[in-house]
Amino acid sequence: MEFRVEKDTMGPVNVPADKYWGAQTERSRNNFKIGPEGSMPKEIVYAFAYLKKAAAHANLELGVLPQDKCDIISQVCDEILTGQHDHEFPLVIWQTGSGTQSNMNVNEVIANRAHVLLGGSLNDEKKQINPNDDVNKSQSSNDTFPTAMHIAAYKQVAEITLPGLQTLRDSLQRKVAEFKDVVKTGRTHFMDATPLTLGQEFSGYVQQIDNSMRAVKNALEVVKELALGGTAVGTGLNTPQGYDVLVAQKIADFTGYPFVTAPNKFEALAAHDAMVELSGALKRTAVSLMKVGNDIRMLSSGPRSGIGEIIIPDNEPGSSIMPGKVNPTQPEALTMVCAQVMGNDVAVSIGGSMGHFELNVFKPLIAANVLQSARLLGDACVSFTQKCSDGIQANHEIIQRHLENSLMLVTALNPHIGYYKAAEIAKKAHKEGTTLRQAAISTGYVTDEQFTEWVRPEDMTGSLKG
Amino acid sequence: MEFRVEKDTMGPVNVPADKYWGAQTERSRNNFKIGPEGSMPKEIVYAFAYLKKAAAHANLELGVLPQDKCDIISQVCDEILTGQHDHEFPLVIWQTGSGTQSNMNVNEVIANRAHVLLGGSLNDEKKQINPNDDVNKSQSSNDTFPTAMHIAAYKQVAEITLPGLQTLRDSLQRKVAEFKDVVKTGRTHFMDATPLTLGQEFSGYVQQIDNSMRAVKNALEVVKELALGGTAVGTGLNTPQGYDVLVAQKIADFTGYPFVTAPNKFEALAAHDAMVELSGALKRTAVSLMKVGNDIRMLSSGPRSGIGEIIIPDNEPGSSIMPGKVNPTQPEALTMVCAQVMGNDVAVSIGGSMGHFELNVFKPLIAANVLQSARLLGDACVSFTQKCSDGIQANHEIIQRHLENSLMLVTALNPHIGYYKAAEIAKKAHKEGTTLRQAAISTGYVTDEQFTEWVRPEDMTGSLKG
Amino acid sequence: MEFRVEKDTMGPVNVPADKYWGAQTERSRNNFKIGPEGSMPKEIVYAFAYLKKAAAHANLELGVLPQDKCDIISQVCDEILTGQHDHEFPLVIWQTGSGTQSNMNVNEVIANRAHVLLGGSLNDEKKQINPNDDVNKSQSSNDTFPTAMHIAAYKQVAEITLPGLQTLRDSLQRKVAEFKDVVKTGRTHFMDATPLTLGQEFSGYVQQIDNSMRAVKNALEVVKELALGGTAVGTGLNTPQGYDVLVAQKIADFTGYPFVTAPNKFEALAAHDAMVELSGALKRTAVSLMKVGNDIRMLSSGPRSGIGEIIIPDNEPGSSIMPGKVNPTQPEALTMVCAQVMGNDVAVSIGGSMGHFELNVFKPLIAANVLQSARLLGDACVSFTQKCSDGIQANHEIIQRHLENSLMLVTALNPHIGYYKAAEIAKKAHKEGTTLRQAAISTGYVTDEQFTEWVRPEDMTGSLKG
Amino acid sequence: MEFRVEKDTMGPVNVPADKYWGAQTERSRNNFKIGPEGSMPKEIVYAFAYLKKAAAHANLELGVLPQDKCDIISQVCDEILTGQHDHEFPLVIWQTGSGTQSNMNVNEVIANRAHVLLGGSLNDEKKQINPNDDVNKSQSSNDTFPTAMHIAAYKQVAEITLPGLQTLRDSLQRKVAEFKDVVKTGRTHFMDATPLTLGQEFSGYVQQIDNSMRAVKNALEVVKELALGGTAVGTGLNTPQGYDVLVAQKIADFTGYPFVTAPNKFEALAAHDAMVELSGALKRTAVSLMKVGNDIRMLSSGPRSGIGEIIIPDNEPGSSIMPGKVNPTQPEALTMVCAQVMGNDVAVSIGGSMGHFELNVFKPLIAANVLQSARLLGDACVSFTQKCSDGIQANHEIIQRHLENSLMLVTALNPHIGYYKAAEIAKKAHKEGTTLRQAAISTGYVTDEQFTEWVRPEDMTGSLKG
Repeated sequence: MEFRVEKDTMGPVNVPADKYWGAQTERSRNNFKIGPEGSMPKEIVYAFAYLKKAAAHANLELGVLPQDKCDIISQVCDEILTGQHDHEFPLVIWQTGSGTQSNMNVNEVIANRAHVLLGGSLNDEKKQINPNDDVNKSQSSNDTFPTAMHIAAYKQVAEITLPGLQTLRDSLQRKVAEFKDVVKTGRTHFMDATPLTLGQEFSGYVQQIDNSMRAVKNALEVVKELALGGTAVGTGLNTPQGYDVLVAQKIADFTGYPFVTAPNKFEALAAHDAMVELSGALKRTAVSLMKVGNDIRMLSSGPRSGIGEIIIPDNEPGSSIMPGKVNPTQPEALTMVCAQVMGNDVAVSIGGSMGHFELNVFKPLIAANVLQSARLLGDACVSFTQKCSDGIQANHEIIQRHLENSLMLVTALNPHIGYYKAAEIAKKAHKEGTTLRQAAISTGYVTDEQFTEWVRPEDMTGSLKG
Repeated sequence: MEFRVEKDTMGPVNVPADKYWGAQTERSRNNFKIGPEGSMPKEIVYAFAYLKKAAAHANLELGVLPQDKCDIISQVCDEILTGQHDHEFPLVIWQTGSGTQSNMNVNEVIANRAHVLLGGSLNDEKKQINPNDDVNKSQSSNDTFPTAMHIAAYKQVAEITLPGLQTLRDSLQRKVAEFKDVVKTGRTHFMDATPLTLGQEFSGYVQQIDNSMRAVKNALEVVKELALGGTAVGTGLNTPQGYDVLVAQKIADFTGYPFVTAPNKFEALAAHDAMVELSGALKRTAVSLMKVGNDIRMLSSGPRSGIGEIIIPDNEPGSSIMPGKVNPTQPEALTMVCAQVMGNDVAVSIGGSMGHFELNVFKPLIAANVLQSARLLGDACVSFTQKCSDGIQANHEIIQRHLENSLMLVTALNPHIGYYKAAEIAKKAHKEGTTLRQAAISTGYVTDEQFTEWVRPEDMTGSLKG
Repeated sequence: MEFRVEKDTMGPVNVPADKYWGAQTERSRNNFKIGPEGSMPKEIVYAFAYLKKAAAHANLELGVLPQDKCDIISQVCDEILTGQHDHEFPLVIWQTGSGTQSNMNVNEVIANRAHVLLGGSLNDEKKQINPNDDVNKSQSSNDTFPTAMHIAAYKQVAEITLPGLQTLRDSLQRKVAEFKDVVKTGRTHFMDATPLTLGQEFSGYVQQIDNSMRAVKNALEVVKELALGGTAVGTGLNTPQGYDVLVAQKIADFTGYPFVTAPNKFEALAAHDAMVELSGALKRTAVSLMKVGNDIRMLSSGPRSGIGEIIIPDNEPGSSIMPGKVNPTQPEALTMVCAQVMGNDVAVSIGGSMGHFELNVFKPLIAANVLQSARLLGDACVSFTQKCSDGIQANHEIIQRHLENSLMLVTALNPHIGYYKAAEIAKKAHKEGTTLRQAAISTGYVTDEQFTEWVRPEDMTGSLKG
Repeated sequence: MEFRVEKDTMGPVNVPADKYWGAQTERSRNNFKIGPEGSMPKEIVYAFAYLKKAAAHANLELGVLPQDKCDIISQVCDEILTGQHDHEFPLVIWQTGSGTQSNMNVNEVIANRAHVLLGGSLNDEKKQINPNDDVNKSQSSNDTFPTAMHIAAYKQVAEITLPGLQTLRDSLQRKVAEFKDVVKTGRTHFMDATPLTLGQEFSGYVQQIDNSMRAVKNALEVVKELALGGTAVGTGLNTPQGYDVLVAQKIADFTGYPFVTAPNKFEALAAHDAMVELSGALKRTAVSLMKVGNDIRMLSSGPRSGIGEIIIPDNEPGSSIMPGKVNPTQPEALTMVCAQVMGNDVAVSIGGSMGHFELNVFKPLIAANVLQSARLLGDACVSFTQKCSDGIQANHEIIQRHLENSLMLVTALNPHIGYYKAAEIAKKAHKEGTTLRQAAISTGYVTDEQFTEWVRPEDMTGSLKG
């Protein structure tokens, strides 16, 4: 491999000749060989691109950066957002806890790429755009990295998580309508209970997802607050008057999301409670989806010796020797994702709790876990919807058989023959292994016609439909 | 010990002669000898008292319970709320996961106590009030226990957690004002950084608590929704028309809190996402307070070889041999509480994720953990405020010494002599172990007067005061 | 309430007149009103009693404590171990993180009780036994509290957890033997799979518990190492030569467990990795038992519309309206315990990770959580064994029906008619809802006799019996 | 892109023309678009290569696979192990929970690559090696995936984690020796305490890592047990006699690690307690390293206003404006890794707890998290050692200043002038802000010479050196 020499305040560094990154990025590559290269999420890089462009525009507007520098910085930021420089960001999550080195990675790539766009060569000792003085102007790693975290997390949630949840929610809501008249046996304690409709059962899932989305949106209300403008310790040292409000407005303009400046920059650098809160909302969502995934898995179990009340799509061969074996693979992927999100939340919480004085230095950890949770939940919902939920069918035959066999329908006889005689019928049926109807008629308490008239499961599903 | 015989549908049971509880409570006592007796939180018992009274009133109003029964049930509920029957609830958290047995414990105590109040004897075979038919009318364990969970959690948070947080928040806010002009060295990465005021530092803590309270209140918006009226599986079987709305209104009236009926009873029985969400908000609060506790612990460290910038109250003897050793015991208690709350959140999340079909059967676990978290956080905040926060003083001498020694004040020279000369001064001071002033003058770049005029830490704390 | 005045180095304190505790205990009571009073586990108090007695004997033997003082201190320690002074230990978990105040609580109670036993009065200003100089001789809170943690945890695990696990393991092993010939349908992905015996299924549970016990015992190998002798920072300041080894031997003698002195006292004060490791082993056990509890819950589900392959004991009335409904309440209690232990492990891990320099100050949190986990697991295993596992019966009728219906028995035809014809049969049975036998005969590939001869589920359960 | 058509039992699938994978891999790619492509850890793929080769050899030896098929399968496995086919494994973690599709991915790649090596073309409809009948012979996804998990985890721990820990341990042990005579002030509760040597302080870290390695090795004792031979449900259906023992021996031979067949295959498929246990040991290691990382971070804090007792290497530019600011970036990376491992452990535990009946279907989740934890810990230890620990120097000047200022050295005067006079001296020094020596002399209790003779911190560090 060929190298060129780049310098920083500690001296010269050999950098791969064809890469835009500079000395500080290269130092970090060498100092932090922890896990696979390039693990810092690309979402963070893109968020930095929005941020650097916004800072350039705010600096221009406030008179501290000339038009031409703003233009060329913006141009490179736009290039980064197309994905064409993805290979220029080789750093890992497990670097300095402030994310300084990833901030510098972005600064260096922008400066060097700008220099080349302006006709220079990477081998020029002096570049026309300086990574610190120009690209990082009015900024510090300490306020840019948390800002990038918020931008990336907000976008991920708004573009992946919430649409994914909505997709699944709508699919399940269609099932609520489709199954609204499918009366089935209820189950409490995993045991047979009084009936409800399959639509009512699914309506609980819809409510869970609706509530999850509300919780996630609540968390976004804090995530939309940006640290930028606080610089090194939150005092805003070296920023022009009005910069914090303006740069947040620019970020809002460029991203299309309602970002605002944080009301207290000391909190915004020293704590990442907003990210912890978002992670908690995603964890709460995972808890909901674990229930949904497990229910679907269990309701579709069988085909002969399980619950079997619903049929889910058959997407791939199960065992090569057993036809009819449809493994609930989408629920499995979904519930694995949920377990991951629950674990990630612990990592985020621990990292979030360990800020000291003016800076929390678990930033990359927090960012990476929240972004992964947000991505996995959204993707898994879409996959689950398309490959499972949309195709769920009621297995009417089994549902009907279970319902007819159910002993607790006896409850409907209470008003007519009293609790004790009803109980006698149920116990007889249980002991002798007969249907309720058979037991009821054999006791002589009710006739076949009366049983038909009085024991109507569909009348036991109440007015509380979903 | 003397016993009397009580019966349920499984037959006779020996019950301690002087206790109001009945057969089902006694069975549970014997069947679940797990951990210390009586671990089911008393807050749940009291919540049941509100609930049973509200159900009696709703049943009366809807014509399914006579006035005299409503009156006597209400009277016993009021007695329970005074705490006089606390010893009548011996059951443990680790019972059936629906909490059925604690529901029956309350039903039995109310029925038997009512019978005695009406002039009967505990030894009477037939009681005037029936635990199932009267006290539990229009109810199921499956909707009462989650309702009691929500009532208890809402009250605990409203009466203990939020007031505790507010108390601490207000104490810290007073410190923000008190310390607004105390300029000190900032610390990022646990390393010296540019200055800020001690008031700004504390303003971050205030913001953290403000945001925590907002998050907790957001969660209460779901906790206020009650499952009552769903009965066995969420369909509302065996409840009169309009009961769910009315009984929630009664609970709101009796407790003074804005409870409403849940929009979807299937979700309210089968999932406890609202409790998971509240637990998550409490965990997020714990993460915030961990930061606050750690900062206070570290800022007060010393007295000679630590950070030592604040002085905290001396509440108890430290070591018997070392005067001046004030251990930060309140931060220690607070941070232990935070760790507990973070662990409890995992227990709640796991329990919350494992509901099946129409019922989640981790209810007592969820209730106990959320109630403990809410209590501990509120109590710890009050203790921390009274015994620590209120008495925090700035250690001006040490703060001033740190500030004067700080090398990064050199930043203020940049506009006057340029970055490179400033860096030369700082490096010289670091290498030779002198003050910046000494190094600056010795280089000849600035005079003593210039240094005094240009290097003013108080001008570096910016306009972003907390 | 009447008070007497006690003094410590900070001055006089009013103490309840009839209590043995002194000034420092009373200060802690007033300074830490967090959660219910007396939450510090009694196991810790008893462990301190062993420790104080052992220290007195070691001090005697090494010539730094006279015989009479050793005698009277030992006598009070023995009294404490009978439980007669349980009400003398009112402090909470949420105190100083070193547990100093609970150490002093024990010191004060022993000194004052000894003074009274020696004929003195609690109101005497000068006591014959001094809590610091005599009871706490050659000790520091910093080495006594971790020692008490280890003693208490070791005993709890040895006396509650491991016997409980063994009890359940043996019960399940009896079922392995009982069910060794009960061939049933297997289930993978919650779906029907090739057969195994019910005994084989249970043998997996036995193996899980065997492995759990081994893991717990591995952890005890570190828990048996005691910090005592390290005193304030691990250097052993103010202890006589040979004290650390001797006092550990005394503790071993008095408790009957193989305690030894820790090889490195700095680690033993500053970290509680041994407790974290034990908590991890208990968590691993909880993970195992969650599987066992869930399987039993699900295998017993029904009675009509579930899996229903086993019958579990009916311990208490289920619903008042549905006979035959046996709720799996013991599995529910067990799995709730497991969730708690998993949450406790996170609390312990966080506390364990946050030691600083020479002392970890999350000691009471760590102790309380480990002790609770150890207790709950042991108790729950005994309860589960006695009220559930011992009474589990195979439901032969349902097992047989499931087995006969199973489509994957078709695998047994492969060697005789080939995979494709076998698959044709299975698909036909699945599509037409018939038995395999019916489908097989209708295709003409096999006769009724051949089917009987070739399709023998019991031959498919292999040689790998549990 | 060009495609070829591959078939499985569900019909034809378009597969990229130049890829070795087949129909089932392609289905999984399309059905599980969750997170980035190819997230299934490569360590799992390599473990499968060992496993498939071992199975081929065992099948050959037991007479169920011909020599030529064994040879060509082995050849492809060896190719995979060189990394040359890394791009042939595009599947994600978030697929079916049994990992079936990754097993088939390996089977398909081996079969098709073997066919090409034997002179065939990927476009041939019939391949000479069949993925199911040949490559997967005597295997099921249900026993291969857990076997691959164990092989991969064992190797990762043996080759990355343990060597990394040993490297760090040895580095710290060298510091123990180097710093054995550096007497410094101790700190408990983050407050000044009696002295110890810097070597003693570091000896605690060494002990922590020694204990961590022992715990990890204990867990490997279970991880070395392999499920292979259990096939579909643990009964070993369709395996030749003696296969399980033999194939484990082959794996041991090929990998060089002491793998053996699991004593109970039902447990080995249905639970992944061994992986949970390993994850717990890694978590326990993370807890240890969090303490070490935090201590180093804090001990090196400053340079002027922190603890500052050690100097760590300066690896990269800190702030561009503040010379002498060395951020503790390696401790930051290390502690972030620790938080991740603690979170991963929760994910693994949840996944591990949710197996049902004969199969746990959270296998890929469990594998991915354990492998990540093992990798990150090992890498972070090496990075921390090379870039931080090896270069740690004592800052003798600050250590000496702290020690001289320390008030608790007064303890050394107790034997000479008594506790009360010593206390008077210490209080005077604290109040007046003087040194102990100054205060001692000014009281007249001791002379300058006596102070020099009696107050010798190095004599207070005891005999318990690390």
